[in-house]
Amino acid sequence: MGTDNKVIRCRAAVAWEPGKPLCVEEVEVAPPKAHEVRLKVEASGVCHTDWSYLYECGKGMKPRPYPLVLGHEGAGVVESVGPGVTAFSPGDKVIPLFLPQCGECECCLSPKTNLCLKNWENTQQGVLADGTSRISCRGQQIYQFIGVSTFSEYTVVPEHNVTKIRPDAPLDRVCLLGCGVATGYGAALNSGKVEAGSTCAVFGLGAVGLAAVMGCKAAGAARIIGIDINPEKSHVAKTLGATEFVNPREQSRPIQEVLVEMTGGGVDYAIECVGVTAVMRAALESCRAAWGTCVIVGWTELGEFSLAPIDILLGRTLKGTYFGGWQSVTGVPKLVEDYMSGRLQLDEFVTHTLDLEQINQAFDLLASGKSIRTVIKM
Amino acid sequence: MGTDNKVIRCRAAVAWEPGKPLCVEEVEVAPPKAHEVRLKVEASGVCHTDWSYLYECGKGMKPRPYPLVLGHEGAGVVESVGPGVTAFSPGDKVIPLFLPQCGECECCLSPKTNLCLKNWENTQQGVLADGTSRISCRGQQIYQFIGVSTFSEYTVVPEHNVTKIRPDAPLDRVCLLGCGVATGYGAALNSGKVEAGSTCAVFGLGAVGLAAVMGCKAAGAARIIGIDINPEKSHVAKTLGATEFVNPREQSRPIQEVLVEMTGGGVDYAIECVGVTAVMRAALESCRAAWGTCVIVGWTELGEFSLAPIDILLGRTLKGTYFGGWQSVTGVPKLVEDYMSGRLQLDEFVTHTLDLEQINQAFDLLASGKSIRTVIKM
Repeated sequence: MGTDNKVIRCRAAVAWEPGKPLCVEEVEVAPPKAHEVRLKVEASGVCHTDWSYLYECGKGMKPRPYPLVLGHEGAGVVESVGPGVTAFSPGDKVIPLFLPQCGECECCLSPKTNLCLKNWENTQQGVLADGTSRISCRGQQIYQFIGVSTFSEYTVVPEHNVTKIRPDAPLDRVCLLGCGVATGYGAALNSGKVEAGSTCAVFGLGAVGLAAVMGCKAAGAARIIGIDINPEKSHVAKTLGATEFVNPREQSRPIQEVLVEMTGGGVDYAIECVGVTAVMRAALESCRAAWGTCVIVGWTELGEFSLAPIDILLGRTLKGTYFGGWQSVTGVPKLVEDYMSGRLQLDEFVTHTLDLEQINQAFDLLASGKSIRTVIKM
Repeated sequence: MGTDNKVIRCRAAVAWEPGKPLCVEEVEVAPPKAHEVRLKVEASGVCHTDWSYLYECGKGMKPRPYPLVLGHEGAGVVESVGPGVTAFSPGDKVIPLFLPQCGECECCLSPKTNLCLKNWENTQQGVLADGTSRISCRGQQIYQFIGVSTFSEYTVVPEHNVTKIRPDAPLDRVCLLGCGVATGYGAALNSGKVEAGSTCAVFGLGAVGLAAVMGCKAAGAARIIGIDINPEKSHVAKTLGATEFVNPREQSRPIQEVLVEMTGGGVDYAIECVGVTAVMRAALESCRAAWGTCVIVGWTELGEFSLAPIDILLGRTLKGTYFGGWQSVTGVPKLVEDYMSGRLQLDEFVTHTLDLEQINQAFDLLASGKSIRTVIKM
């Protein structure tokens, strides 16, 4: 390839400072260093977490180093590989992963978790293993959001933060498996371990919540109650498996009371996909005593919520999920297979397709609840 | 038997009002009604929950109807049975149970819980199925604490709130299986599902906590860190299986930070046996991200504690236990077997044996941390 070992000049949406719209700029993407992969991003979903880091920085989210390139739900093609990379070759179709799977750390060696500690601190700070980013703009280093940065035509990621997928997979669909859909779907299947015949409540019907609905359905849940303050989410939720829809704003009582009454004591599984602490508490309190499980999925880094010990003492379980409990490198290609074979839906999530230049419009659609997922096609 | 169908006059320790010492009085114990069993209490442990309901009523505990007879960790002999009772006969050695096991309710039919809903609301309010108590004093109804009342020479309980044990079991030891030891031991084995080779922390080394230590040991835990502000608990904790002891008051940092450092990232299992909300949070934060499980055991009915969602999102699980997860009627006789065969220790828990007249002394010993369990012998 002509670009091998060379700096690539391309477009990227740069977040110069928190709270301000992104600017599409010409950036420079350095060649991959040892154990890194440079990829051409073909498509990227726009996830609520991207929006939150920009617009809720310091509120729901910890401050991050700026400027940075957001985007962490992408798919693309390997452009070149750095020294020591043997698992990838130029031309491979891949999904970059904000959660690595090194296969060697304490977590990777445990059957109890999908977390991986490899480069964790660095990628959380927007840099790769050597403490620097591969993206720059007019000579200034641009941080890589959780080590990924898919709102760029090219990016560089560590070799354990990328997975190869089958070559016929449509990148503008399977990119959603890099975060939102994988997270919600796995929250039901892996973290909640939803059982056949059970009653589930899913709080928040964005892409993650809708994927959780789909996961509950895949698990054979008998009742799946979708909950959102946006009544327009009812239809798509039912398309994906919800059997009922409740809008908390149309209720005169707290949603947990409504759910406890609707289900004669509470749901077997409550899955919180909003990332709001008050909703987390409501989700826990919606669970049936004795065996109800509440899985919190919605990402928030600041704030706390209060709970009554008696709710736990009487048999409820509170747990969380990160990337839906999937081990990333080995799990995502299987989810791609599930999509290709029709076992997992993705098309229903893509409500809008836009160009990189329209990225701020994608954020507006997201914040206003008008989109489920916008896919940016590069 | 000469007392069959007759009111029995006997001694009981009556709690006339919250916050005041118990008074040993002559009470009248009515014959058992249909599906009830009257038993002669031979021995009763004095549990922290008895103390809490008397001295922390409205603080950590919900107000209960008074006057009442406390005591819920007893053992005795069936004196007579009411109509319809076929599983018990006079002379059977039994342990009364504050948690029933009816075998028929939604909970009993579920493999996911040991709770039983039978007469729950009534026994929580100090009465039996018909809404009345069987104990009275000078013509006044005396409520039965969680339907049991073992601080009385005789009491009456519903047939599903009692279990038959082998006749050679020493009642002044196996009474502890009616609450504290069963609860702590099961919290580790059933609720926490502690695994061999794991690292555990047990917060609070009263009888429940010491039994949790014993449960961790039975599960094959490699490290069992006992935690108590009373340094005198170190020795007995080590006798029962603790490998280390930490006194939070001797540390300059919060106990969770100490434990995270001691264990290189946190414990696999934290078991909270204090019933204090601040300790519950510390226990959760002592757990390793990715897979740490915190089991809260210490009973408290009021108050709340706050937690950071990120602690849950990164893979910690919070759960609780009620009676250690044992189904009561079928579980307790097996625990008696375990004691009789030497697999479970009880003798080490009994630090004092007193008469019913000395019941307030037993509370003093408990509150001052000088006893583990005082057994009242009738």
